[in-house]
Amino acid sequence: MNFASDNHYGATAQILAAIAASGQSPMPAYGDDDVTKRVTERLCRIFEREVAVYPVINGTTANSLALATLVPPHGAILCHAEAHIAVDECGAPEFFTHGAKLVAIEGEAAKLTPEAIERALGHFQKGFVHHAQPAAVSLTQSTELGTVYTPAEIARIAGLAHARQMKVHMDGARFANALVGLGCTPAELTWKAGVDVLSFGATKNGALAAEAVVFFNRDDVRDFEYRRKKSGHLVSKMRFISIQLEAYLADGHWLDSARRANRLARSLAEGLSKVPPIEIAYPVAANAVFARMPEALARKLRKDGVHFYDWGVAAGGKTLARLMLSFATPEEDVARLIALARDA
Amino acid sequence: MNFASDNHYGATAQILAAIAASGQSPMPAYGDDDVTKRVTERLCRIFEREVAVYPVINGTTANSLALATLVPPHGAILCHAEAHIAVDECGAPEFFTHGAKLVAIEGEAAKLTPEAIERALGHFQKGFVHHAQPAAVSLTQSTELGTVYTPAEIARIAGLAHARQMKVHMDGARFANALVGLGCTPAELTWKAGVDVLSFGATKNGALAAEAVVFFNRDDVRDFEYRRKKSGHLVSKMRFISIQLEAYLADGHWLDSARRANRLARSLAEGLSKVPPIEIAYPVAANAVFARMPEALARKLRKDGVHFYDWGVAAGGKTLARLMLSFATPEEDVARLIALARDA
Amino acid sequence: MNFASDNHYGATAQILAAIAASGQSPMPAYGDDDVTKRVTERLCRIFEREVAVYPVINGTTANSLALATLVPPHGAILCHAEAHIAVDECGAPEFFTHGAKLVAIEGEAAKLTPEAIERALGHFQKGFVHHAQPAAVSLTQSTELGTVYTPAEIARIAGLAHARQMKVHMDGARFANALVGLGCTPAELTWKAGVDVLSFGATKNGALAAEAVVFFNRDDVRDFEYRRKKSGHLVSKMRFISIQLEAYLADGHWLDSARRANRLARSLAEGLSKVPPIEIAYPVAANAVFARMPEALARKLRKDGVHFYDWGVAAGGKTLARLMLSFATPEEDVARLIALARDA
Amino acid sequence: MNFASDNHYGATAQILAAIAASGQSPMPAYGDDDVTKRVTERLCRIFEREVAVYPVINGTTANSLALATLVPPHGAILCHAEAHIAVDECGAPEFFTHGAKLVAIEGEAAKLTPEAIERALGHFQKGFVHHAQPAAVSLTQSTELGTVYTPAEIARIAGLAHARQMKVHMDGARFANALVGLGCTPAELTWKAGVDVLSFGATKNGALAAEAVVFFNRDDVRDFEYRRKKSGHLVSKMRFISIQLEAYLADGHWLDSARRANRLARSLAEGLSKVPPIEIAYPVAANAVFARMPEALARKLRKDGVHFYDWGVAAGGKTLARLMLSFATPEEDVARLIALARDA
Repeated sequence: MNFASDNHYGATAQILAAIAASGQSPMPAYGDDDVTKRVTERLCRIFEREVAVYPVINGTTANSLALATLVPPHGAILCHAEAHIAVDECGAPEFFTHGAKLVAIEGEAAKLTPEAIERALGHFQKGFVHHAQPAAVSLTQSTELGTVYTPAEIARIAGLAHARQMKVHMDGARFANALVGLGCTPAELTWKAGVDVLSFGATKNGALAAEAVVFFNRDDVRDFEYRRKKSGHLVSKMRFISIQLEAYLADGHWLDSARRANRLARSLAEGLSKVPPIEIAYPVAANAVFARMPEALARKLRKDGVHFYDWGVAAGGKTLARLMLSFATPEEDVARLIALARDA
Repeated sequence: MNFASDNHYGATAQILAAIAASGQSPMPAYGDDDVTKRVTERLCRIFEREVAVYPVINGTTANSLALATLVPPHGAILCHAEAHIAVDECGAPEFFTHGAKLVAIEGEAAKLTPEAIERALGHFQKGFVHHAQPAAVSLTQSTELGTVYTPAEIARIAGLAHARQMKVHMDGARFANALVGLGCTPAELTWKAGVDVLSFGATKNGALAAEAVVFFNRDDVRDFEYRRKKSGHLVSKMRFISIQLEAYLADGHWLDSARRANRLARSLAEGLSKVPPIEIAYPVAANAVFARMPEALARKLRKDGVHFYDWGVAAGGKTLARLMLSFATPEEDVARLIALARDA
Repeated sequence: MNFASDNHYGATAQILAAIAASGQSPMPAYGDDDVTKRVTERLCRIFEREVAVYPVINGTTANSLALATLVPPHGAILCHAEAHIAVDECGAPEFFTHGAKLVAIEGEAAKLTPEAIERALGHFQKGFVHHAQPAAVSLTQSTELGTVYTPAEIARIAGLAHARQMKVHMDGARFANALVGLGCTPAELTWKAGVDVLSFGATKNGALAAEAVVFFNRDDVRDFEYRRKKSGHLVSKMRFISIQLEAYLADGHWLDSARRANRLARSLAEGLSKVPPIEIAYPVAANAVFARMPEALARKLRKDGVHFYDWGVAAGGKTLARLMLSFATPEEDVARLIALARDA
Repeated sequence: MNFASDNHYGATAQILAAIAASGQSPMPAYGDDDVTKRVTERLCRIFEREVAVYPVINGTTANSLALATLVPPHGAILCHAEAHIAVDECGAPEFFTHGAKLVAIEGEAAKLTPEAIERALGHFQKGFVHHAQPAAVSLTQSTELGTVYTPAEIARIAGLAHARQMKVHMDGARFANALVGLGCTPAELTWKAGVDVLSFGATKNGALAAEAVVFFNRDDVRDFEYRRKKSGHLVSKMRFISIQLEAYLADGHWLDSARRANRLARSLAEGLSKVPPIEIAYPVAANAVFARMPEALARKLRKDGVHFYDWGVAAGGKTLARLMLSFATPEEDVARLIALARDA
């Protein structure tokens, strides 16, 4: 039973079929193909706006390229202390930005607040060459703890950022899960709330290796295309990334996949919450369940074949288990895990 | 009729089928899966040696990561003036190495000679901090002009490089084409001749997006894995790159694909060489044909629907047309192109 | 009355005289001169050990070059949240290290503790490519708040760092002030306590523009000399930096200058501590006095011509004033400032 | 007898005296002092135009910061194959620009021609992301071989560069020598001929460590100040660099120093040209003499105590000796060297 990560599962049948059907016929390379054009058009419709779309292979790349395009080497990027860009990318944003500074900010449930951002900004004097210059805020949606930002929360943060000429980046590795969790539109969750650039994730939700950097304003694209090439992220047979995205977006397939994962997460949380020693640590707003449980129980579950990660260091005899649900997690695994916990 | 690039064609049926069959079942991410292990084992057998294998998505990345691992920021990389790393990667090696210097060396038919390398080295004083320090030679196999280095030629260059504590990198974006063109073994063409690290290409020869960095000595791997992650090139669902490589290497599929492309190249060159105003500019040792022809003829062929690139600037009323053949170029396109040229 | 910074004052008479006497006669450039050799010898005697010495122009450079030599691009540097390298160098360490990560750790009086370092290290999994790899701890001596680390405190931190294969860097922009404040030897305060590399400051204590990177182990020097050149910090007429250092170190001149500054700091702190609404915020162990005072009093002092910086944002109607004393602060300015505060 | 380099000599009496007189009184740090302001005003008068002036410590830094400000990471810089930036800075421009590409172009007497630049540009397709994008031309004035560009020559190159939206940088490490050699005004030699940014040298012509980056258009300054800080080149007690520049520029001191060096160079060239086996290889337009002589003669001169560098590798039994004259080379050394050569 694999609850370790949503990127442990393969790809959806629809996406695999689309690739299998793609054949050998020649097409222009490097993104000048028709599939890539259609993906852009589709995302324009989905976001109800002209957007610039750049397919890449993974989230680290989408985040780093988006941020490097908007943040100068002497800039600073404000993000949550648990943000993937701060913790799990081995300093990729620092490399792509040529040495910009990530400012890690604490906050409940992996969420930034305007107040915490204001406090952090207090340490940086504008125009003072000794200080890195805050140039962007990065929000993860859904967050690393499976919580979400509402459009209103995003708007408050974006308002604060824009008032200081900072850009707003959204790490949407699990954008679909946040979207269906909140029940709003893609536009409401992004540019209408002030997001300038989105790392639009697909891999964790059923693609093989496909994300897209989505700019909501053409002016922000700047030298993005050179950065993508210079960092080795311009794929020659781009069609194969775009085919994934096209199948992902067709007929609401992406939303269906996310809904399924979120539904399983809610079921799992509900089931586990009824098992006395287990406590659900954060609201389950997307496809992650964080369950605080005795270390002994965590060990027992692992022995029974349940794969999951401990989140942080165990404390007070308790482990915080991260349980990820995906588009492909077997329905019965959820029931089995609840039963195992109950019978432990 | 597409002779523009071998990366304009899609993927082979075998590779597409392997991906389609891969399904959704969970596997460890980031290369800890069994497919990736099997690919490594297969390449060890193919190269008759323990090798370290790192799948990546394209050639620019394979080259840049390999070189950055072996060359310090104050280092210099010697390569031919027409080398892909020097001309067509928008300075990716400079970015990945944090500012190492590429030394572009002229030479017949896109090939470096020991003499030219010696001459270039004369400009760099060893241990003199004002000079970048030559740290690697990079050879393209087959070259950008469709020619090849024999094992003996490689050995002479590698001997010279190693005598100066320099490493030898091979850009093998078209390694299979060179291999079948020369009729030697993978080992003879690489480590037995002194190659330290190989960018092993598969994309141009029938994969979707798959190459591998192959180190012939474990010690040279150094911090490669961190560099791959930090540059965004560690793919989460790595299996999908490895599946391509596994299918590519199975049952000699890669060699068959390359043989086909090379055979078509020879046919095309032979046919065109009999058309009076056309001159075949370089020996056809792999899957590229460079045909010098009157500009008017080039225009005519384009008008008739033939896609190809001009190589360099036209001079003396003559165009140098690059005609690439691939695993998937229709057999009849070769005959049609020859006929079009003859009847022009 | 200037208490704004110890780098607002010029140079000592001895150092100016040494430069004036240097004349025009030819000497090898780039550090191959005899003055530079003598400075190295002098520092070997001062530190009672063979050391490698590299003069540079300022502290940001000394810190950045030292850290970049010891920390790979995928590394992390642990430092206090108030550290100069984290706050006041516009991301220079990130630039020189090609994107390593600074981990800002909170702690009383601008000091790191072993416990806080352990806690921070808990977030980094060794050998896990997704995490930056902790590679160095940086301590500021004296700290940004005028406090000091005792040799025993340094030794505990260094022991912890070395046990994890991390290096220990000391930012000694005010090393002399810490040294005379603690009354120990240079060796006790550095390598005997486990420091691997020291940014040895002279500018703030009376030089024009002179610091030295001092490595206590030859093996740690690695490619430092190339890094210095490549970043533009190899001065051609190196003698002029070395002449400053030679005069600085002659006859205990550096210690005398630091003693004077520290003595003035103690006098000022003692005087101000008797003025009722003023509170001395941190122990005065070097040449800085941090005085918490009503905002109105701070404004009054400024109006009376006292230059100083506010430290952080005022809170509860109180300003934290940083008052720096130097080798050249007029003795009478101290008395005048105390009188102004008292009479306010 | 030292003819090895103009940076082997110390500083002029005027500059040393100015520093000695500077004293200890407090001044704002980091360039906000009055001396720095006066230097800017002086250079505005000298260049007959509003200019932005940034003092730095050496030529490598001036060149690298100026180029990094004008050239993006995906840019290319065209320069002569013998240019200091290409040969003698250990890849500093590549580091500061985050990986831009230097394009080394051959040309007689270390000079670029419009034709050679055009030819080089032919290899770069504008807007093609695979190619680095030519963004600047860098000219050395006087050149590494002691020759000079006339204003008319500069204007032709600048016209060509500007027509392609490229900037023009002048490496003026020996700007004063070129200026007095040509007998034109600073304005005529720079912005009137199309130069956008100048590395204005003083160190080789009598300062200790002082150059200035001079921008002729405020818009080009962009983020220069952050780059200077982030690379460690913002000196805290900036006054000490500015004092050098102020003394250097006062009363035509810089021009007098350069005239002296140039005059000695002409004398030396004239004298040596009469010694039969010696050939003066390049026109002596500034303060360098390149004398081709039998290897035996070069050995003999060295044995007699003459210091100089061989330029390149000896060929055909001949050495190309670089003989540099400076503001401080003893007059009699010139006569003695000629006599030694004659009597050999």
